[in-house]
Amino acid sequence: MITRQEAAAAHRRAEEYLQRANIAMTPDELKNREIADFGLSDLNNIGLEVIVYVNEARYCAKELVMFPRQICPEHRHPPVAGEPGKQETFRCRWGEVYIYMQGKPTPNPKAVVPERHRKNMTVWHEVILKSGEQFTIPPNTWHWFQSGDQGAIVSEFSSVSRDEADEFRDPEIGRFTVLKD
Amino acid sequence: MITRQEAAAAHRRAEEYLQRANIAMTPDELKNREIADFGLSDLNNIGLEVIVYVNEARYCAKELVMFPRQICPEHRHPPVAGEPGKQETFRCRWGEVYIYMQGKPTPNPKAVVPERHRKNMTVWHEVILKSGEQFTIPPNTWHWFQSGDQGAIVSEFSSVSRDEADEFRDPEIGRFTVLKD
Repeated sequence: MITRQEAAAAHRRAEEYLQRANIAMTPDELKNREIADFGLSDLNNIGLEVIVYVNEARYCAKELVMFPRQICPEHRHPPVAGEPGKQETFRCRWGEVYIYMQGKPTPNPKAVVPERHRKNMTVWHEVILKSGEQFTIPPNTWHWFQSGDQGAIVSEFSSVSRDEADEFRDPEIGRFTVLKD
Repeated sequence: MITRQEAAAAHRRAEEYLQRANIAMTPDELKNREIADFGLSDLNNIGLEVIVYVNEARYCAKELVMFPRQICPEHRHPPVAGEPGKQETFRCRWGEVYIYMQGKPTPNPKAVVPERHRKNMTVWHEVILKSGEQFTIPPNTWHWFQSGDQGAIVSEFSSVSRDEADEFRDPEIGRFTVLKD
């Protein structure tokens, strides 16, 4: 849960990041973007801002804005209605992002995870993306990611996005953000 | 057909446009990008530069670089193997692009088409995209597009891309570029 005031401040801050990266949006897109706090009420550590460009049966594209060291918490995209889960390609447009997924744990990873959230980050195979680099996460694969010290802007190209089907490692997570006055 | 020298010059110029728009690429992406002259050997008027980020069965994403007033000639994406043709969302990232598609012709369109190519641009329903704006072309719909006086960079989000299946209005067109020394 975040207050409307916190949401407005995060929106303003995200706009500064988009400007810095020269990424243009329409007023409607800015109006409809989503702040995801995953119900944990800890937006500085766990959360991101999502602008959906297109989400249809045949493809999906989004822009993700992350403030410094924000984490998108561990989750996977399971099969839905006989289709494989969502497959997604993350392309770092600005800043740096560290992706963690199933596989051999990376020694000395770059992520910095607050104590409170550490038990829910269980996969540690690291992929580092600098500006202009990309990586594809296969369907139904546990993963999470964190931006670097400057924050990051990440383009996501994927199959259809069905956020309501996502499975999260942290049982306290709710995918949709609740605003309070 | 274009010479290797022309191709190298176009590549260098495209890199300047990408830098201007703050769009980062890996060396491999720059190495593998495609100059499309559609076999018309008239790159200044008909052509574009294509960087494919990902092209898989479930989704596709590309960046298109267009020099001032370059045209991507009229074509459509027919059904293939029982699937509807390619659907694509064009998002203008930098500059301006004018899309023309089936539908009521727009009076006083912004496009400027050289005499030689005019008979092969038959659809004139105009959609103007400025930086930050996007538009989706349904499958199997005739369309073409031209960049404005500054050129354009356009992100393409789509279903799988099968360029070899495209149908072009101009019978002289071959989709793939031939390089000569």
